[in-house]
Amino acid sequence: ELFEALVAHFTPKRLAGQRVLITAGPTFEAIDPVRGITNRSSGKMGFAIAQAAQRAGAEVTLVAGPVHLPTPAGVRRIDVQSALQMRDAVLAALPGQTLFIATAAVADWRPAVCAEHKIKKDGSGTTPTLAFSENPDILATVAARPDAPYCVGFAAESEKLLEHAQAKRARKGVPLIVANLGPATFGQDDNALLLVDAEGARELPRASKTALAAQLIEEIARRLNARQA
Amino acid sequence: ELFEALVAHFTPKRLAGQRVLITAGPTFEAIDPVRGITNRSSGKMGFAIAQAAQRAGAEVTLVAGPVHLPTPAGVRRIDVQSALQMRDAVLAALPGQTLFIATAAVADWRPAVCAEHKIKKDGSGTTPTLAFSENPDILATVAARPDAPYCVGFAAESEKLLEHAQAKRARKGVPLIVANLGPATFGQDDNALLLVDAEGARELPRASKTALAAQLIEEIARRLNARQA
Repeated sequence: ELFEALVAHFTPKRLAGQRVLITAGPTFEAIDPVRGITNRSSGKMGFAIAQAAQRAGAEVTLVAGPVHLPTPAGVRRIDVQSALQMRDAVLAALPGQTLFIATAAVADWRPAVCAEHKIKKDGSGTTPTLAFSENPDILATVAARPDAPYCVGFAAESEKLLEHAQAKRARKGVPLIVANLGPATFGQDDNALLLVDAEGARELPRASKTALAAQLIEEIARRLNARQA
Repeated sequence: ELFEALVAHFTPKRLAGQRVLITAGPTFEAIDPVRGITNRSSGKMGFAIAQAAQRAGAEVTLVAGPVHLPTPAGVRRIDVQSALQMRDAVLAALPGQTLFIATAAVADWRPAVCAEHKIKKDGSGTTPTLAFSENPDILATVAARPDAPYCVGFAAESEKLLEHAQAKRARKGVPLIVANLGPATFGQDDNALLLVDAEGARELPRASKTALAAQLIEEIARRLNARQA
């Protein structure tokens, strides 16, 4: 606690007066009462960003999928499981927010039907097939609102980082996309980020997620302050 | 450590001389480099049983799916992700084991194909479908071997506990099945167990997973010692 207080004290208050809403972690999309689809996101990057934003003076709300991480000091946390629950929690918390950072690895699809009881092998050797429904796009939904805060999206890709990030930025209608190599960094303690905005692309080289989160908050604060000036 | 040493010291050594192989946790079946199918098993029951068996004097090997739990003192741990990896780790560790306790919530099916790159939304609004392949039945595979140790299976069910446990016992060809209400107990710190063997059914009433694990080890030791006598 003393360490946290010291770090917070010496962090420039670049987000003073800002209210920041952050999503983090994977979602869990139920197949039946026991099984579900999830992804390898550990939530570490999102939790580090929440902590960095709080240290920079913001009032931070963190909507978290199922992860095993402690809540950063001074951050309000709301736990959810599915993409639909995350969407509802984000929209409920949205009024008054000035910055939205969507780091969560939200499932694009959920099973079209969630079975009431555990799906059993029937001994015939035939295997089930699973049909999907598309989940709502939380970031695009928020960005399209008339009262939208400044929106930052994340893209976890296994290839063609810049290309996918630029396409995602256009598709979601947000000013800034932060791309990283998902499969290589999920669960790891360090990462490297590629910031893609209207000006072009800028890399934050490999570092601990804590250090990267502080740098990213500086980058976001500069853009946010320019917009609000 | 002192506490652990004291508890171990005062635990009757009912499994002295036994070599116990235990599986625990869920498996993770990859859909693509980012996504996968898993289940709500936390691994707590299996880890508690590994600890209880070690305290009872056994030499314990624990094959664990992806969980966030510390390794019990004195237990050898092997981490795996998928059902196929768990099967391979179990078969490699099997020679010389006298008791096999399969608590892991192994996926019945895995995606028939694991995509090389992350599956993307193509903007058409059409959703993917997923076909499955049946996973190997690790417990039945072990039980069918000529050198099979005494085998204990677990059944996590959402309904009809006794009926499903009896059917599973016959299907897997094992002397003892331990049933519990999966969706109600996954991730919880307590549980209740129903032991189903050739004699009938016996309930271990709701208690902490640590207490239940010690009782279960007593029950298993009695059956194992009777068989070896």
